[in-house]
Parts: sequence; structure tokens; C-alpha cells
Amino acid sequence: MSEARIQPVRLEYGSQDFTRQLDELLAWESVSDTHVHNTVTEIVHKVRSHGDAALVEYTRQFDRSSASDMNALTLHRERLQQALEELPQEQRAALEVAAKRIRDYHEKQLQSDWSFTEADGTRLGQRVTPLDRVGLYVPGGQAAYPSSVLMNAIPASVAGVQEVVMVVPTPGGEVNELVLAAAALAGVDKVFTIGGAQAVAALAYGTETVPAVDKIVGPGNIYVATAKRMVFGQVGIDMIAGPSEILVISDGKTDPDWVAMDLFSQAEHDEDAQAILISPDKAFLDQVQNSMNKLLPTLERAGIIEQSMNERGAFIHVPGFEQAAEVCNRIAPEHLELSVEDPDALLPLIRHAGAIFMGRYTAEALGDYCAGPNHVLPTSGTARFSSPLGVYDFQKRTSLIHFSAEGASEAGKVASVLARGEGLTAHARSAEYRIKS
Amino acid sequence: MSEARIQPVRLEYGSQDFTRQLDELLAWESVSDTHVHNTVTEIVHKVRSHGDAALVEYTRQFDRSSASDMNALTLHRERLQQALEELPQEQRAALEVAAKRIRDYHEKQLQSDWSFTEADGTRLGQRVTPLDRVGLYVPGGQAAYPSSVLMNAIPASVAGVQEVVMVVPTPGGEVNELVLAAAALAGVDKVFTIGGAQAVAALAYGTETVPAVDKIVGPGNIYVATAKRMVFGQVGIDMIAGPSEILVISDGKTDPDWVAMDLFSQAEHDEDAQAILISPDKAFLDQVQNSMNKLLPTLERAGIIEQSMNERGAFIHVPGFEQAAEVCNRIAPEHLELSVEDPDALLPLIRHAGAIFMGRYTAEALGDYCAGPNHVLPTSGTARFSSPLGVYDFQKRTSLIHFSAEGASEAGKVASVLARGEGLTAHARSAEYRIKS
Repeated sequence: MSEARIQPVRLEYGSQDFTRQLDELLAWESVSDTHVHNTVTEIVHKVRSHGDAALVEYTRQFDRSSASDMNALTLHRERLQQALEELPQEQRAALEVAAKRIRDYHEKQLQSDWSFTEADGTRLGQRVTPLDRVGLYVPGGQAAYPSSVLMNAIPASVAGVQEVVMVVPTPGGEVNELVLAAAALAGVDKVFTIGGAQAVAALAYGTETVPAVDKIVGPGNIYVATAKRMVFGQVGIDMIAGPSEILVISDGKTDPDWVAMDLFSQAEHDEDAQAILISPDKAFLDQVQNSMNKLLPTLERAGIIEQSMNERGAFIHVPGFEQAAEVCNRIAPEHLELSVEDPDALLPLIRHAGAIFMGRYTAEALGDYCAGPNHVLPTSGTARFSSPLGVYDFQKRTSLIHFSAEGASEAGKVASVLARGEGLTAHARSAEYRIKS
Repeated sequence: MSEARIQPVRLEYGSQDFTRQLDELLAWESVSDTHVHNTVTEIVHKVRSHGDAALVEYTRQFDRSSASDMNALTLHRERLQQALEELPQEQRAALEVAAKRIRDYHEKQLQSDWSFTEADGTRLGQRVTPLDRVGLYVPGGQAAYPSSVLMNAIPASVAGVQEVVMVVPTPGGEVNELVLAAAALAGVDKVFTIGGAQAVAALAYGTETVPAVDKIVGPGNIYVATAKRMVFGQVGIDMIAGPSEILVISDGKTDPDWVAMDLFSQAEHDEDAQAILISPDKAFLDQVQNSMNKLLPTLERAGIIEQSMNERGAFIHVPGFEQAAEVCNRIAPEHLELSVEDPDALLPLIRHAGAIFMGRYTAEALGDYCAGPNHVLPTSGTARFSSPLGVYDFQKRTSLIHFSAEGASEAGKVASVLARGEGLTAHARSAEYRIKS
């Protein structure tokens, strides 16, 4: 038996301190301090006023680039296609299977126009159209994930977005060929090898070379997140992501090695990632902890896993599944694994989760790559009010209103009363012009 | 002929300076200066740490309230119902017609679950569920609009939100009975007579009396907008609204008085509101300007209208409808009136608008009150990437993934290759456990 390096905090549902302990465990705020705020404000301002010149300058400074103009920081479709073609066959095949499954699933999310006509000929409806142009931020270095390129770009492509522009920093000139190959597969039109707040500013306001987009999606560090929050309104943004989390609810009958590795697959992301296990079976919690300590030394990212499990992980013992669901709804986890015999029975009790992985075979990692649904999911409890990234994030709606003369006359009478009640008499008179005398 | 007080700027499509002039006309940034930012930061912090006590204190200070506790700042369902019952019959009937039409339209927006099963038994799907609790901000004083209560609360009710809480400041104790009546009709559960950044903070974090909500919607001043931006992430928020705008495209054959009044109905909102008229018929532009100057003296809000039309309004002459549509797509207006003979012919050219009012009879004011579609619409060009407020803003999606043993085995092989490509070996091994040997 190896040394017990992993000892997640144990909580007991219903114990005196349970609620406070749970709240403390979940507390997370991304802190954008004054220094970050001021730095980002300056970068956004400079890129907005000096365009390409500022962009090149910042990239030389932050990414140790030797580029003298934006030409050197631009990759066209041919370069992406080349990356795809030079990929080892096994990787290319895997990427293609993943891309196809992601595309198939997301096509089910397409929304369409609708309208209806009332008795007097008045027609009301809603039109759905794609965004014109979207910017995709992909982190560089360690966290450059080709799977994220697929997950962000394919929904945009399915939505019918005309142009998808990607930015990815290449610190020290290091280009990730898998990322470029994924971009080719996902239909990305152009890549700029820039990053940080400067890349966000360029996408939001446009420069001589980088086209201004309508929405920016994709994860990034605190500078990127702060810049996205700052340009929100000028462009749309996706959610600002916190650390990744998993909650596993187990009946205690799944192989403890499987559950341990599922929890590890979150914990290995970074030290702030959170992996929580809930079970009514106390002995099973011990078994999973034993498995963890057995498996840890065999893993490449053991250091990160150890820190994440010990500082943010938890094992929660509950009396039964009803209480497990209650705790889950309080957490509103990004990923929820229902590692139980009959996950369908548990499903109606779950109100909040980004994605639910049902049954013992549905490892969360399958969802990260190739199940089909998106792996960009609401973190830090935001599943209470937000959704996985989807085709709907790249479409927008327009209301259509076409009154018949008769319909306008009837509606005009109602609008007139309400507008006068609000003291808006130009509104009232505009409506009254349409009332038949 | 009365004095020509209204002279909107005239732009000529294709003139040398047209693009720059248009950009200048549209330029708008809500400026949240350092003073506002610091004030709001302090208010949010105080309410978060001192709860009700801070809330009562701020309400005494900012709204000249004499309340000594939150009891005095709480209105229950019975009080709202009373306001509805004491309304003059005509107003009550008008509110009821509007509420019914809004509800009928929004019911068409309800989304539902879907799922599909693959050949190997793997099931994928998407579940749609309502938010638990929503907070509705309603401005007090002049801008307290009962129609906005209907437009914000009814979609939440249609979505199935369990609890809708409303906040509305009552400066000097002045309560708007129409607003309370609308709240009763729209299914609001409880009202707190608080406002400003302190109300937003209370809704986001909860106090002893005010329950923490999952999303905050509704318009407000710069303090409210700044507070909403600050608590975004802790809760969901709707778009941050800029001044209201209308763009009318006319073929020159609508009564110029009608078009003038339609433009006025936006201009009367406030001095920053923007009303723009586009027509290929130059003489018609003159006619509308004449109508404006004739009608202005007869209007209660003439001063606001005059300032808004002269400072932010514009008349644009274009060669034809194709160019009119091009300018419209550049503007991405909140409200678009197609005051033309055959609006359906023009529709395919329009890519961006919050709501489109089709034909000569469809005054924008009808849409503000009782057409059915929402009057909360994307402003300041954000119709490029966002949508009218709708039922979808009060629902969220959860991905469902249920792999069969066979499906997990196949997907596991793909995930393993991709995870190893990304250097995430715990992901790979979690997937590999499910591969059949």
C-alpha cells in the first residue's frame, strides 16, 4: 500500500456544520484585482487607438515574438489544412470521429423561424438568423486543447456564421499542430497568433488586419476574462469560466478505480479544479480513497491532482439519493456523473447541472472529447441560470410584427390607454392614427 | 406654419463622408466613471456584508424613506392584487388584453427536451428547465412603466420560474399603482420597494429578507447597470440597455404625419433616444420634417423630443431599398419600421434588428404595449448578436449523455487518443477503463 497522499475533506450530510462547510468548499471568486484591471484597460485602449501596431508590439513583448507586422502573425486556411494533412493517421481519425459526433449533436439544436396569423390578418412571428462573424479565443501553451477548438467552432459553423476567426498565442513561437488541424476540421477561416487582452481588444474593435467580430467565445486567463468582461456590450461574450468541476453521485457499486480516475480527470486540469464524490455508502468512500492513493503515483500530473483533491476536493456521505440530489442542486455542478444502476430514476430530482453523465459507463472524459454535446459548460454554480455552449449562442432572434388595418385599429385602442397611463403621449397618438374612425 | 424647431441632420448615402458621419451619429458608450464604479463597489460590499441593515440605511438615504426595517419596504401579493382591483375599468381592461397577447406570443417560445438513441443503445439529449428564482428591477419615478413589468415578468412566468421577486424604488414614498397592478397580473410574487445598486446587490447575494435570485432582469440608471455588470457571474443578467432607438425605412407613401409621430414616439423617451428615417424619396423627408414641426407644439414632451431629434436624430437619403437595408444592417436598430407597400420583399435583405414592424399600420408603439412580442430589445447595435428578452432567457439547458457499454467502448478509444494528444492522461485512463478487452 502506497503512502496516503490524498485525503479529501469528509462531510456528513445533516451534521451541525454541514451547510457552512459546503458553502466554504464551494466558495470561489475570480479576483480581477486593480492591477489586472488597469493593465487590461490600458491594453484595450491602446489596441483600439493604434490597431495593428499596438497588437504587434504587445505580442513581441508578452509572447517573445519577433514579428514585425501582422502578416507574420496570420495563418490562412492552407496552413490549417496542411496541419490536418500532416497529422498521424490515428490522431486525424480520432479528431474526425469527434468532429462528426459534435456536429451531429449540435445540428439538433438549430432553431427555426415561426409565425402565426390571427383572425384579422395580423401576423406575428420570430425570425432566427446567424451572427455574421465570431471570434474564438484559444489559450496557448499547456492549455491549448484541440478539443476546445472543435467544441467552440463547430456550433458556430452549424449556426451558419459566415466567418469564424481564431486567435491563439504562440509564446516563443511554439505552434500546436493539433490545434491548427482541429481549426481546419471545424471550419475556422483564419487564425491570428496573438493572445491575451490585446487579442480580445482586437476582436472587439477590429484593427487594420483583424476584423471586428460580433461575439467572442473561448476560455482564457484572468487578463483574457477581464478583457472579455470589459468589451461585453460592444460584442457578445460567452460565460466567464471558473475552474472545472465534477460531482460524482455513486451508489457504491461502480468499480472504485473507475470513480477515482473519473475524479482525477477533473483534478488534473489545474490546482483549482474541484472533484466531489457523494455516496450513501461510507465504505465505498474509503475504497475510492484507497484507489486514489494506489493510482496517484502512476499519473503524469500527480502533483496537480494531489493539490486539487486535498485543497478543493470532498467526499460527502449522505443518507440517501434524495439528499444527494439536494446537495447537487446546491452545487449546480458543471459535470455531474450519476454512477448508479438506474440513473433515469434519479434524473427528475436534479434541477441544476451543466451536463449529466448517466450510468457507470459514461465517464465524464468521453463528454470532453467525443460524446457529441458541448464540453464548454457553466462553472461555479452558474448552471443555475446558464447553459452549455450551443448553436443557440451563435444565432439571434428578431421579432416580426405585421398588423392588418383592422388589427392595428383594435390594438391601437389598447396601446392608447396604456401609453396615456404612462404619460407617453406621442406613443398614444402614433397608435391612435391607426384607429379606424 | 410654425417655427422650424426640428432640423435633423441630413445624410446622403454614398457621399464622400457618409460612413464617417454615420459612425459618428451612432457612437454611444455608457460611461461608468471611476466615481460611479467606486460608489457601486462600496454599496455592493456593504449590502453583502450587512444585509437588511445596509439596505434600509441606503433606502433612507437615497429614497428619502422613513422605513426602520425591511417590513416597511415589502409589499405582498394581497397589496398587488388590491392595486389591480382598484384600477379604473378602462386601464384594467387594457392591461389584461396586453397581458394576454404577451402571454400567447411568449408561449410559442417555450423550448422542450429532446433526445435520440444511437444504434448501440447510447442515448444523447438535452433537457430544458426553468430558473428557480428571478429578480425584476423596475425603475421608480418618471420611468416606472407598467408595460415593462408585463414584458419582463410574463416570460419568466411562462418559462415556469417558481418565484419572481420585483424591486422598485419609491422615492419620497410615491408608489405607482399601475406598476403594482401590472405586477399582480404578471404573476410577481413579492415586491420590495428598494432600488439602485443596493437593490441589485440584495437580489444577487440575498439578505435576511430579500431572497438571492438566479438572474436579474430589467432596466435601470448607470448605478443599476454598473451593479448588474459587477454581479454578473454570481447571477445571470439581461443585456445592459442603452438609449432606445427607432429606424424607419419608408417608401414615401405613408402619411408623413404618421411617420413623424412614429419617430417622435421614440424621441420622447429621453434626450439620448435616437430616431432615424431612411427613404429614397427626398421630397418625403422634407414632408416628414414639416409634419414634425407642425406636430411638435401639440406634444407634452416637446422639449425632450426637440433635443433628441436635433442632437441624435437623422434623415438619410438613399438611392434605393437595397442601400436602405445595407444602412440598417450597419445600424442593427432596436426597432425597425418598414413603412412600405411590400415589407415582405424587403425582409430578406435585413440581417440585424431587434424587432421589425412591417407595413404602414404597424406603429412601433403597438409593439411597446400589446402586439405580443417583447419590448425589451437589444439596443446600440447589439442586435448583431443578441435577441429580444424571451422565455429562453428564463430557461436553461442541461446536456444528457448515457453511453451503453458498447458505445462507451468505441468512444473510449477515440477519447483516449485525443486525451493523450493533449497530455491529459487521467482523462485517457478514465476513458480506457470503459474499453472492452
